[in-house]
Amino acid sequence: MSLKLYELVGTDPSRPFSPYCWRTRMALAHKGLSAESLPWRFTEKSALAPHGSEKVPVLLHDDKPIVDSWTIATYLEDHFPDRPSLFGGEGGRAMARMINAFGDIAIVGGIFPLIVADIPNNLAEIDAAYFRTSREARFGGKSLEAVMASRDTGVVGFRKSLEVMRQTVKKQPYIGGEAPNYADYIVFGGFQWARVVSPFKLLEADDPIYAWRDKLLDAFDGMARKSPGHQV
Amino acid sequence: MSLKLYELVGTDPSRPFSPYCWRTRMALAHKGLSAESLPWRFTEKSALAPHGSEKVPVLLHDDKPIVDSWTIATYLEDHFPDRPSLFGGEGGRAMARMINAFGDIAIVGGIFPLIVADIPNNLAEIDAAYFRTSREARFGGKSLEAVMASRDTGVVGFRKSLEVMRQTVKKQPYIGGEAPNYADYIVFGGFQWARVVSPFKLLEADDPIYAWRDKLLDAFDGMARKSPGHQV
Repeated sequence: MSLKLYELVGTDPSRPFSPYCWRTRMALAHKGLSAESLPWRFTEKSALAPHGSEKVPVLLHDDKPIVDSWTIATYLEDHFPDRPSLFGGEGGRAMARMINAFGDIAIVGGIFPLIVADIPNNLAEIDAAYFRTSREARFGGKSLEAVMASRDTGVVGFRKSLEVMRQTVKKQPYIGGEAPNYADYIVFGGFQWARVVSPFKLLEADDPIYAWRDKLLDAFDGMARKSPGHQV
Repeated sequence: MSLKLYELVGTDPSRPFSPYCWRTRMALAHKGLSAESLPWRFTEKSALAPHGSEKVPVLLHDDKPIVDSWTIATYLEDHFPDRPSLFGGEGGRAMARMINAFGDIAIVGGIFPLIVADIPNNLAEIDAAYFRTSREARFGGKSLEAVMASRDTGVVGFRKSLEVMRQTVKKQPYIGGEAPNYADYIVFGGFQWARVVSPFKLLEADDPIYAWRDKLLDAFDGMARKSPGHQV
């Protein structure tokens, strides 16, 4: 059996940073699976085209492509049922959909303006140019630096927006319960993305989410913490 | 076996309106259980005191009190395991904790300022006075009418804050998956609360959450829709 994972990197191929690829990385580790990393950069669209995707993560399972982090998670759950469950049953699989939306909107969407101008520092010139042009268009032509200029006040609103999650990890160790599962990896992917590309401090040290993140940095023999990144 | 449920009502004892009691009502119906309703009003603290609570819902199972909607849900799941599951497994039970926080913060907390001055209309004088005094204190002394004055703009922000849920029910029929479970009842309780006490229109008819709410109004032979309330 062979598993290969296309992961977004910049100048350093050993420094994957996509929040969605980190969801998959953690999911693979949870299942006790290892995948060969295929470093991929923003402008290498042609490498993914044969697999029917424009974006990462793309997982190749014996050369069959599985595209999109959510689809990969459910694929792993269905194809490796004897390994630790990512969802803890059908109810968890359904509810993780909502946590996936929380991860996309509140976490990735919330963090993006706080770190966006730091991202090109991690990219080769051609990828930095692509990133800047495509992302500035999304912000209505505003420069990445202008978007990020208000991050010291923006981060206060971001922290506040995490209250639903904060109340959860005050009451139980992980979103997934006593042990982490895919619900946690969804959210953690966003924090790990930020940690890899930006020195900006997202969480206060006394925030219960800070302690939760620390535990996930240590998970799987410190896999995420060992991956190059900034101090958080 | 006997089940009795203390439920918050106002002048009409057949019109329970607490969002938390509606979570429990729906959970009982899901389990195929019926409980005798014990109507309870805000100022009847002495009726609950012997059961160790100041708030509803309180469920009496053969006279043993179970206090708090979340505790009741897990109690029902554990004590009636052969009936349809409220969580769909341990993963769902854990993740529902986060959806419970979403229900408390985004739904109940988000709806409250939009309907707050309508609530006393449903209450007898003594309860209305208690409600006004205690809730105005929470709003720093602002009158309920002043809190609600901006609801036409406030509701726009409320609808926006539901995006995480909207994305979910666009992708699957219920938060709980193909069929509703406790994750749905958590959120629905808030909408049913609003429907019972206020004519204010919370959702646009083309919102996927509107269609989701409609299905839950129809669930269990239209239990929630048959309960007296406003047109929504």
